[in-house]
Amino acid sequence: MPSIINSPNAPFCVAADWGTSNFRLWLLSGDGTPLEELRSEEGLTRLPDRNFAAVLETKLAEMNAPSGLPVVICGMAGSRQGWVEAPYVETPASLDTVLLNAVRVPGLRRDVRILPGIAQKSASVPDVMRGEETQLLGISGLGGDQTVCMPGTHCKWVSLRGRVVTGFTTFLTGELYSVFSNSTLLKHSVDPAARVQPDNAEFLDTCAALIQEPDLLTARLFTIRAAGLLHGQSPLRASAVLSGLLIGAEIGAARKTYRSSDVTLVGAGRLGTLYEAALALAGCKVTPVDAEQVVRNGLHAAASSFWAREERQSA
Amino acid sequence: MPSIINSPNAPFCVAADWGTSNFRLWLLSGDGTPLEELRSEEGLTRLPDRNFAAVLETKLAEMNAPSGLPVVICGMAGSRQGWVEAPYVETPASLDTVLLNAVRVPGLRRDVRILPGIAQKSASVPDVMRGEETQLLGISGLGGDQTVCMPGTHCKWVSLRGRVVTGFTTFLTGELYSVFSNSTLLKHSVDPAARVQPDNAEFLDTCAALIQEPDLLTARLFTIRAAGLLHGQSPLRASAVLSGLLIGAEIGAARKTYRSSDVTLVGAGRLGTLYEAALALAGCKVTPVDAEQVVRNGLHAAASSFWAREERQSA
Repeated sequence: MPSIINSPNAPFCVAADWGTSNFRLWLLSGDGTPLEELRSEEGLTRLPDRNFAAVLETKLAEMNAPSGLPVVICGMAGSRQGWVEAPYVETPASLDTVLLNAVRVPGLRRDVRILPGIAQKSASVPDVMRGEETQLLGISGLGGDQTVCMPGTHCKWVSLRGRVVTGFTTFLTGELYSVFSNSTLLKHSVDPAARVQPDNAEFLDTCAALIQEPDLLTARLFTIRAAGLLHGQSPLRASAVLSGLLIGAEIGAARKTYRSSDVTLVGAGRLGTLYEAALALAGCKVTPVDAEQVVRNGLHAAASSFWAREERQSA
Repeated sequence: MPSIINSPNAPFCVAADWGTSNFRLWLLSGDGTPLEELRSEEGLTRLPDRNFAAVLETKLAEMNAPSGLPVVICGMAGSRQGWVEAPYVETPASLDTVLLNAVRVPGLRRDVRILPGIAQKSASVPDVMRGEETQLLGISGLGGDQTVCMPGTHCKWVSLRGRVVTGFTTFLTGELYSVFSNSTLLKHSVDPAARVQPDNAEFLDTCAALIQEPDLLTARLFTIRAAGLLHGQSPLRASAVLSGLLIGAEIGAARKTYRSSDVTLVGAGRLGTLYEAALALAGCKVTPVDAEQVVRNGLHAAASSFWAREERQSA
């Protein structure tokens, strides 16, 4: 029934981002429109029985996904500790090579493919990504050479030349913010629940100083504690300074390698707005894109390359 | 009995370093020789009942310390959360002013005095120390202007001009090493029990790189994880790299403020030898002194200023 398959609202595939702690699925139409969406906390670390196939089929049934519909997956599901390993593609890595190295899950009637991550096998600055390559696929349509900043628990800075990832750097910024707030003596000073805003003066001042001198980070962490003891600095201000120190140090260090003043920011929510403000302080011209939309776009682009509609019609 | 009091082996005072997690006491002779020594884990955080006087008297009885013997204490016992607050002396802080601001514990028959810490009340780089001022007193006899490096959980760099502390900076290096090894994704890569040695090649190479470019710290942390995944880097090598990143970033950042190439290193054990090797890489001429000996010397100097032997004889 080609007419139904080609209808813009007919399900074309299921796209999934299956990470360490979260699992997100979308039922996508042929043009990439999300028809259904599901979120769950059944990330890798919450599946001790490793029953990936059963979890996936349960989700697909909840979505009323037709039984023959193919599924494309990105994220840690393709890691060695995941469902089926999709070995890393090495830099310089064309996103087309990433697509060609997707791994089909064996032993299933349904066509389920997992996208590989990218590895930078340099001896001095080894690095890996899984999931971000799919977001890069989702923004590669912007064209040209891009410096991409992807904030999160483990923020990535990426040099993308057309469709080729030439190099990247991971910063633990999000994880450091959490661990400094909860597990060091700074926990007595900051408010771990603080929602620092991008117009916060302490955040901006600290960011600006650290962008100029990112090596100040280690010398300034303890001032957060001392300012509380000596000047009664509030927990919100303390959190703003900590956020400014970490984001400023990241941007200051990253800008030594990624020098283009045009930065594509793959952000979301409040964290995205903090990075947007900080990058502006660094003199960058920022193109913000929505992190969730670009992963969906990337998965749709992958699905379109695997299952061209012509192919589906002839099947 | 002046002859007994003046005997070099007669007890002159008890000196105590009473910190957050530990409590160390020495029975000192008039010339500062330790006649007895006790260590305990009854630091501040382990005394929920705040029964400081009772704990001290128990220890003194264990040492057979005469009932009239005075006691001098440094460390967190003088903090607001401690036994009796000894308010901070502000920078520029003469060590003589520190001595003059010791606080006598009220309501005791025994003469017990607690030394104050030092505060740097700057708006931009506030900082505090408690305990290190006593170590500085112990090395002030070296004379002249000194740049002092005091490694530990919270490492201090201090500018000491004669007997005046003109400025200082706290680095969380020891705490960061512990929290990165145990509470971040690096815990999958490092060996928290590794005993990195000062001739370890990965430690020295990483230190040298970070001393030159301390802002690389945030960009390099994740390489520890990636090198394990991609190159099978051993946990010991990973720990050596983490140690090199943190100590190198500290020294690289500290050297921007503390430029003298002569550094007095108040160290102990393996950590002291790591700093000694790292400071040599930074081109510093290092004078190592033993951390425990200098705190004892500082407490003895304080006691000698409070209780001159002439005074004791006339009492």
